[in-house]
Amino acid sequence: MKQLRGFASDNNAGVHPEILSAISNANAGHAIAYGDDVMTEKAISTFKDLLGNDIEVFLVFTGTAANVLGMNNIGQSFHSIICAETAHINVDECGAPEKFTGMKLLSVKTPDGKLSIHSIKQYMHGFGFEHHSQPGIISITQPTELGTLYTVSEIKDLADFAHQHNMYLQMDGARISNAVASLGISVKEFTTDAGVDVLSFGGTKNGMMYGEAVVFLNKKHASNFKYFRKQGMQLASKMRYISAQFNTFFENNLWIKNADHANKMARLLFEKVKDIEGVKVTQEVQANGVFAIIPGQIISKLQNAYFFYVWDEHTHEVRWMCSFDTTEEDINEFSALLKRMISEL
Amino acid sequence: MKQLRGFASDNNAGVHPEILSAISNANAGHAIAYGDDVMTEKAISTFKDLLGNDIEVFLVFTGTAANVLGMNNIGQSFHSIICAETAHINVDECGAPEKFTGMKLLSVKTPDGKLSIHSIKQYMHGFGFEHHSQPGIISITQPTELGTLYTVSEIKDLADFAHQHNMYLQMDGARISNAVASLGISVKEFTTDAGVDVLSFGGTKNGMMYGEAVVFLNKKHASNFKYFRKQGMQLASKMRYISAQFNTFFENNLWIKNADHANKMARLLFEKVKDIEGVKVTQEVQANGVFAIIPGQIISKLQNAYFFYVWDEHTHEVRWMCSFDTTEEDINEFSALLKRMISEL
Amino acid sequence: MKQLRGFASDNNAGVHPEILSAISNANAGHAIAYGDDVMTEKAISTFKDLLGNDIEVFLVFTGTAANVLGMNNIGQSFHSIICAETAHINVDECGAPEKFTGMKLLSVKTPDGKLSIHSIKQYMHGFGFEHHSQPGIISITQPTELGTLYTVSEIKDLADFAHQHNMYLQMDGARISNAVASLGISVKEFTTDAGVDVLSFGGTKNGMMYGEAVVFLNKKHASNFKYFRKQGMQLASKMRYISAQFNTFFENNLWIKNADHANKMARLLFEKVKDIEGVKVTQEVQANGVFAIIPGQIISKLQNAYFFYVWDEHTHEVRWMCSFDTTEEDINEFSALLKRMISEL
Amino acid sequence: MKQLRGFASDNNAGVHPEILSAISNANAGHAIAYGDDVMTEKAISTFKDLLGNDIEVFLVFTGTAANVLGMNNIGQSFHSIICAETAHINVDECGAPEKFTGMKLLSVKTPDGKLSIHSIKQYMHGFGFEHHSQPGIISITQPTELGTLYTVSEIKDLADFAHQHNMYLQMDGARISNAVASLGISVKEFTTDAGVDVLSFGGTKNGMMYGEAVVFLNKKHASNFKYFRKQGMQLASKMRYISAQFNTFFENNLWIKNADHANKMARLLFEKVKDIEGVKVTQEVQANGVFAIIPGQIISKLQNAYFFYVWDEHTHEVRWMCSFDTTEEDINEFSALLKRMISEL
Repeated sequence: MKQLRGFASDNNAGVHPEILSAISNANAGHAIAYGDDVMTEKAISTFKDLLGNDIEVFLVFTGTAANVLGMNNIGQSFHSIICAETAHINVDECGAPEKFTGMKLLSVKTPDGKLSIHSIKQYMHGFGFEHHSQPGIISITQPTELGTLYTVSEIKDLADFAHQHNMYLQMDGARISNAVASLGISVKEFTTDAGVDVLSFGGTKNGMMYGEAVVFLNKKHASNFKYFRKQGMQLASKMRYISAQFNTFFENNLWIKNADHANKMARLLFEKVKDIEGVKVTQEVQANGVFAIIPGQIISKLQNAYFFYVWDEHTHEVRWMCSFDTTEEDINEFSALLKRMISEL
Repeated sequence: MKQLRGFASDNNAGVHPEILSAISNANAGHAIAYGDDVMTEKAISTFKDLLGNDIEVFLVFTGTAANVLGMNNIGQSFHSIICAETAHINVDECGAPEKFTGMKLLSVKTPDGKLSIHSIKQYMHGFGFEHHSQPGIISITQPTELGTLYTVSEIKDLADFAHQHNMYLQMDGARISNAVASLGISVKEFTTDAGVDVLSFGGTKNGMMYGEAVVFLNKKHASNFKYFRKQGMQLASKMRYISAQFNTFFENNLWIKNADHANKMARLLFEKVKDIEGVKVTQEVQANGVFAIIPGQIISKLQNAYFFYVWDEHTHEVRWMCSFDTTEEDINEFSALLKRMISEL
Repeated sequence: MKQLRGFASDNNAGVHPEILSAISNANAGHAIAYGDDVMTEKAISTFKDLLGNDIEVFLVFTGTAANVLGMNNIGQSFHSIICAETAHINVDECGAPEKFTGMKLLSVKTPDGKLSIHSIKQYMHGFGFEHHSQPGIISITQPTELGTLYTVSEIKDLADFAHQHNMYLQMDGARISNAVASLGISVKEFTTDAGVDVLSFGGTKNGMMYGEAVVFLNKKHASNFKYFRKQGMQLASKMRYISAQFNTFFENNLWIKNADHANKMARLLFEKVKDIEGVKVTQEVQANGVFAIIPGQIISKLQNAYFFYVWDEHTHEVRWMCSFDTTEEDINEFSALLKRMISEL
Repeated sequence: MKQLRGFASDNNAGVHPEILSAISNANAGHAIAYGDDVMTEKAISTFKDLLGNDIEVFLVFTGTAANVLGMNNIGQSFHSIICAETAHINVDECGAPEKFTGMKLLSVKTPDGKLSIHSIKQYMHGFGFEHHSQPGIISITQPTELGTLYTVSEIKDLADFAHQHNMYLQMDGARISNAVASLGISVKEFTTDAGVDVLSFGGTKNGMMYGEAVVFLNKKHASNFKYFRKQGMQLASKMRYISAQFNTFFENNLWIKNADHANKMARLLFEKVKDIEGVKVTQEVQANGVFAIIPGQIISKLQNAYFFYVWDEHTHEVRWMCSFDTTEEDINEFSALLKRMISEL
């Protein structure tokens, strides 16, 4: 169905064929349920190869769950979580963090979805004052919900700052593959080595069917997590099918290949649209998303051809996400269509 | 791997080949994420064919989530949930119901895993008394965790009793296919028509990879469920892959065939072991599980050959679960082995 | 102890002598516990005289509890609460609203502690979108935490706006007596008649020992509150002692007299300090608090004489609260001292 | 009002005159709010004199809150709490423990309200098994809700047993004064010295107006409690009035005198009724309550004269509680009336 192709979300893409095969191949015989199987063992071992031996890894179903349960283990209900106003945990999880953890979210307005020490200082007070939710967690998304990236040193600074205040740094890595592909460094360099305490490691947005990982880069935070995962309704009975996906994801660098392709497509889209009169790209294109302001009159017509979401109804800012299966043809057709529609105004 | 075959759990079985194909076939092109796709539409429509038009259906990842979120919508935090002591919600969900809903669980000791009006009357007091958690929900499992079945009239009586007290009846149908196959009646007869208010409709234990449904048989209970599902971290982004499984599950009666097979294997196992000296079957075999007391000395040796769980360490009661892929050969070999081991004592 | 007098908080004041007598007088014989007594009946009846017959009233211990439990009854966990950034529920309740209700707080930066339709519009989106906490409650404080007041028509506008969006309006009236005294109208005019749905009616900050009321101005919101109050740990066993306080509070207009006095003292303080060079009053003085920027060097020395809190450490803004027992002498001495300290800089 | 005297609850009694005076005397001048005052300092110091220096004490409003918040600090949401079926936390707190802590309550049927190692062993399994709420807390009430007492060695055994399993022992001491008076030993002997981890120390049922203490007998459990108390809506702004009550409570042994009187009255009542034909005392009278089965036909008529509660509607078991202000005349009149009513049957 042609009309379903589009730039709405990397979640709208299907499953990568190699991942599908992995699932089929996992289907031989019985395996002990709930993760006590060889495929899960292998997945955990691969995560350790990537992120360091002194970590703990737990698989869950969704990115929201990875964020909520990961943060739950590094804070208590009287803590606050400082995040960008645009953070997924703040605007796209229907209050799941508040409901499960009891913590308060404190949001920071940002131009680019990125927190800085400067911008979070407004919330760094009331320590020890029992009337006040205690600042406990800094949460960043890499790449951000606006398609931008933190540098290694920006992450290190935030981690150091957090630790100086007895706080912890959580990273929402729903699209972490895209960050690795774009930064051209190992995933360990901007996570474990940079001082991140707990990481949500995404799979679904990059060609998996379902499955994310909560990775405690500092093992001490992992204690009792298995109980919270079960109580949080995130323990998969047939876990081997998530593990098998991750195993193939990491084999032959599929995760990087998929992400690199999506990034390149976003880059190409950017190149094609940036000089169209009436189009203003609003964010640096550092991962697989392009944000742009376009003429409001053409939006719904354009959406009929290639679906995408409006990011800001007042400014007519739109979001175009590329995925592992976006094609050059998609980009060419879409940008040509955009150009034509504007010219016909 | 032969050594992994066994009778531990229907969760240890893999995925039925037709379900696997369904997943592969679902993988064409993009689909709107989060359930706004044609496969999900079809799944919901099939549920309505089975259970009545005046229902609402929502897909989630796990059985625990189906129970917790379903009950959350028919009660408030000050309510209590009356269930059998052996209920999954009581002993196998790590407190997820209490954590998410805030409700109190009141458990009833039973010989066979089944609640009766008589046995729950001990908790039917304190109505209107604010110091007391208000009896709000009766929760039953069909078939029970002990492999037994409620009759239609038993369910009707419990539903009527609940409704007379402004309470609601929830059914944990993690293995509901096995109940349908065993009772030989339509699923609607012992759910919607019997007065059940909300049903957890299981797929995973009967050949699916993952995916369960929360079915509000009385639509009025469904309001706002979509928000609770998201806040409960159970909204699948690529929902079409759950829906596709259910669609195949229901096509050509696969769900009944799988369940009927598992039930028959349990029945066969029962026939093979019931007369072995030293073996005492403890529950009626009405679905796909056999419960029996066997000599304690042989348990771990027997588990090495075919894994299964000990139900009661003190009495040496064990649980043998059959699944869609259990073979007659499994049963014959296992029962012969059991007989030999006992004879060699 | 002279050194303990000050302008820190109306909570630092003691209990009004008439309230103390009321408590003693309540101490005759036995009374049914938990509020089923004649004094509580009378208190509720007086609240109805003040606020209308079609209301429901429940007594609790603290203002935080009144806010949390009141809002809990007009929203669900997936809702959001829109409030001023300076709201007590946002900065002084240690996350109690999030913990008990599961709701998300959305804060609005304001110059004067007051919400307006204009300023809350930024959060009025995402209705029906399950990823997003649903805007559910607008919460205002009257008088605000900055000592300012909403007019009747401002409240009406917010109530109408809320109701147009299927939302509700909650009012934190921890210092509601001061609002009544200052506005010179009946309490009903700016609450029930203006469309407020639930009100936290404060006693403690105006001469009571402990005790606040949750008042459902629209009765339909009150259902099941008694259970939530108990589950929220706010059901007083010897409730008559709270009720007796409220009865005296309302008799002979004590609540208005106390508040009027505190307001007048704040007004006097304002008059005394407004023309001191180096002092800049930052908020209109409409109730019993004065906010001012003063030279940073004198703050701690001045606090030693009369304790008060610094509101903003960076700008040297301070808060001076007056209470029912503040005297003209306090004001004269304090303002003279302030003037002298500044002159000696 | 004579008709309000009765044996319903020690909560129906008023406030002891010395406590009332204490409150009045506390009312001089300003005091820093929220417990940073000299009266609270003194109260804490007295608790340390009684229970040991290595403890931490926090005042709250209600007994339910003391239990819930105390247990919250020694467990996590995935833990279970083992208690007697008759425990206040199980039947009289409307699910407050489940709601705030997320923990599961596991109740034990007992003849006398007392747990034993033997009776709790049924729940001591599933350790390390993530599907199962982890046994975390043993909760006992001293004296029990049935008016019976644990001996020091029984408490020690339970504490040792708990600690051997990495569990903790909580004591609900809503009526702890009655236990001290009855056992004739220091309160420290059966709490701190016996290995209790956290104690709810009651005041309200023994002549105070309101106020209970959460006492961490093992300091390490107290960390962050002040935040949980605030988030749990139990931080009193004018805390000095609770502290003043406790200070007088402990001065001149008022707490023991009151309790001893109530115990003696219960003993006297027992002596007066035990030989009346048709009356069967069902529990040992070790504190201030008498439980008895009486003829069902006289219950409501008897309640009209002296109010009391029916404990078991089926067996006609009733509960008669004595308090600090019960008089010998009350006992004589009541027992004579009971005798007459029965004789007239």
